[in-house]
Amino acid sequence: MWIRHHSLRWLNNLSPVQIIVLFYGFAVLTACILLGLPVAHQDGVTIPFIDLVFTAVSAVSVTGLSVVDISETFSVTGVFLLAFVLQFGGIGIMTLGTMIWILLGKKIGLKERRLIMTDHNQTTFQGMVRLIKQILYLIFIIEFLGFIILGVYFMQYFPTWYEAFYQGLFASISATTNAGFDITGQSLIPYKDDYFVQFIHMGLIVLGAIGFPVLIEVREHLFASSEERKFMRFSLFTKLTTFTFLALIIVGTLVIILLEMNYFFADKSWHEILFYALFQSVTTRSAGLSTMDVNMFTEQTHIFMSVLMIIGASPSSVGGGMRTTSFALVIIFLLTYARGQHRIRIFRREVHDDDLIKAVVVTMFAAMSVFTAVIILTIAEDFSLTQIFFEVSSAFGTTGLSLGITPYLTTVSKVVLMALMFIGRIGILSFLFTFKNEEKKGNYHYPTERIIIG
Amino acid sequence: MWIRHHSLRWLNNLSPVQIIVLFYGFAVLTACILLGLPVAHQDGVTIPFIDLVFTAVSAVSVTGLSVVDISETFSVTGVFLLAFVLQFGGIGIMTLGTMIWILLGKKIGLKERRLIMTDHNQTTFQGMVRLIKQILYLIFIIEFLGFIILGVYFMQYFPTWYEAFYQGLFASISATTNAGFDITGQSLIPYKDDYFVQFIHMGLIVLGAIGFPVLIEVREHLFASSEERKFMRFSLFTKLTTFTFLALIIVGTLVIILLEMNYFFADKSWHEILFYALFQSVTTRSAGLSTMDVNMFTEQTHIFMSVLMIIGASPSSVGGGMRTTSFALVIIFLLTYARGQHRIRIFRREVHDDDLIKAVVVTMFAAMSVFTAVIILTIAEDFSLTQIFFEVSSAFGTTGLSLGITPYLTTVSKVVLMALMFIGRIGILSFLFTFKNEEKKGNYHYPTERIIIG
Ligand SMILES: [K+]
Ligand SMILES: [K+]
Repeated sequence: MWIRHHSLRWLNNLSPVQIIVLFYGFAVLTACILLGLPVAHQDGVTIPFIDLVFTAVSAVSVTGLSVVDISETFSVTGVFLLAFVLQFGGIGIMTLGTMIWILLGKKIGLKERRLIMTDHNQTTFQGMVRLIKQILYLIFIIEFLGFIILGVYFMQYFPTWYEAFYQGLFASISATTNAGFDITGQSLIPYKDDYFVQFIHMGLIVLGAIGFPVLIEVREHLFASSEERKFMRFSLFTKLTTFTFLALIIVGTLVIILLEMNYFFADKSWHEILFYALFQSVTTRSAGLSTMDVNMFTEQTHIFMSVLMIIGASPSSVGGGMRTTSFALVIIFLLTYARGQHRIRIFRREVHDDDLIKAVVVTMFAAMSVFTAVIILTIAEDFSLTQIFFEVSSAFGTTGLSLGITPYLTTVSKVVLMALMFIGRIGILSFLFTFKNEEKKGNYHYPTERIIIG
Repeated sequence: MWIRHHSLRWLNNLSPVQIIVLFYGFAVLTACILLGLPVAHQDGVTIPFIDLVFTAVSAVSVTGLSVVDISETFSVTGVFLLAFVLQFGGIGIMTLGTMIWILLGKKIGLKERRLIMTDHNQTTFQGMVRLIKQILYLIFIIEFLGFIILGVYFMQYFPTWYEAFYQGLFASISATTNAGFDITGQSLIPYKDDYFVQFIHMGLIVLGAIGFPVLIEVREHLFASSEERKFMRFSLFTKLTTFTFLALIIVGTLVIILLEMNYFFADKSWHEILFYALFQSVTTRSAGLSTMDVNMFTEQTHIFMSVLMIIGASPSSVGGGMRTTSFALVIIFLLTYARGQHRIRIFRREVHDDDLIKAVVVTMFAAMSVFTAVIILTIAEDFSLTQIFFEVSSAFGTTGLSLGITPYLTTVSKVVLMALMFIGRIGILSFLFTFKNEEKKGNYHYPTERIIIG
């Protein structure tokens, strides 16, 4: 079933990024086959080919945008296969590949290590294998705890323990991988008054989307002796992405409350307002689950949430979008420049110029990808610009929130959204480098000449 | 009438940019007073205060967005006063100030030269006074030629030579300063089949918006002896901005034709299609005049034109927006980066890092300004996102094209548009530096630490 190691040799001429893209392609193909099996469907249900591919891409990229109703389309077998695809896509094909190699006791060579490095954008080779192992342990522990807690708790909602744990398993996987698919047929709306279920879900979503390096570092700190801890510090990456992640959630919550105070929240109690705003803010990081029909929000909230979705989750996480670090660096860069300074300093560290340049490139290409998609969908569809912008942002952020227009899109638009989910999930930089030949630094110079700007 | 030189001494503590902002403020105030005079209005017409301020800001920033119908509101005196304000705003308050000083025979000191330098973003002090003189000569010659040609030609349209030259004068000033105001009551729609009028207008628009340095350099080349010409070359700025300006017009024309082929252009002849598309592409650089009701275009064309308007005209021109050079540098930077190279080379010259950084800053702040304005207008108004985006882009680009919603906006939105016209006209960088204290380069360093991006 798995591609054997010696058969990988022909891949040696490909760059790590090209190999990852290739693997994602394989994953989508596999997902198509699995989800296309007749046994995966409920009796009498057939899925059009484009919708099958769309569901596969959405599942592999853990977006959760859906052109079919999962609960009415897939059988129990189909739901298990879908959960399997989400695991595969969420935790990362490369990570899984590594796990299999580790399980098979194979020694991991440099080429494979570079592969993993690129997938999670890690900048050092050291401890890569150990890292992947830790990631898998952590994710499975998180998912298992989520499964047990939700399974037990769901017994008050469902007639049998089997049904409760079935729901709990899928919910835990969907939340932790930030997949956003649901088998309730209406996301978390059935639990809109159950703050415990929402709280557990938010915990799982954050743990999946905040970035594996953060989890690893926190775990190391927790298990270190007080003596060891003196010499430990959190990396700049962990500090920056955690701060940005939490800041986005808090600012998102406050702004949503502000924008909806006189509209959706007009007749709600303070705890309803808090939980609706908090959950819908958290979910824009990448999860896509929701405790309400987001159509109930006003247009300004839709536009605001679209931007939150474009920003997306941490790098090296199950999420998508332009990522927290790109967003944070660009904002800090602008503030630094506006204050007339040049060196970017965060948490008593300086940011490397190359990282800043990457962040700028990512931001610009994110804007261009989203804009191009919006133009194409505007041509192809009759929906309003806000609806189109929301759906496009959701695809790029691999969030999966929807104003409900995705099932009614033309094939052209579905293909565009698939491309966005792909770009958003593997990351703009990886996507860019896929089309790039060998890095050749031209070593000739022309005279420099100044230009009038803005 | 003019602020005397010795009374300017208290300004010495202000930065050049702050002084320019102050002068723009004075200009708006002056425009308010002039356009608010009872003699400026037609009998029985009164303008609400907010609309008077809006008209003044729109005129000083040569935007042309209007909350009142010029032809039905202002008397002949009012139209002459408006033309005066357009000249003042278009050619630049600083330039005019210099002219007055030159006329008064005063020696221009360093402080005033720095002022002019900042207004037109010039990077060298040399020949500044000579430059301003040349600008004024050139602009007046261009406007005078436009006035004569249009005046004579308009005699076939109007019953008296007085009326023809009155229309010709205002049209020439409005086109050359890219003001976009009209006294026909419906822009250039009366001349939608008169390609000669359109051609002259496009010429005047391009000459005003392509940038003064370009005009000066071309003029020097034209008047140089063949011997001198051997040692002359066009500056990188002139090459880049001219290339970008023309490329935007051509690409704009082609894309508009493409987007409207099956819609507005469906029943048009080839020359109608060409001139409609060409003129509406040219006008997005900054002019805002139009030969049709842009509401007739499809939504996708509105979105596309909005982006063209945000890009705007050349720096050191009568136009606004993020400017051609910022746009070009960012695009070239992205292409260079995608090809794995680092030095940005254009026309056998290298671009200075500082200029690239400026271009990136301008682009980001432009996006943020437009986004913030769109959110506020979405909250305050009931219009569609496309309508709001178009109007906001038009204000930021000081273009003045309109889908017709501006007269119906709430006061909050009018204030937002005024702020955008101001930012778009004086340039994002100048705007940024207004709120910036002394440039202090912190000379301490923290250790550099890498971050995972995108
Ligand atoms: K998702
Ligand atoms: K204009």
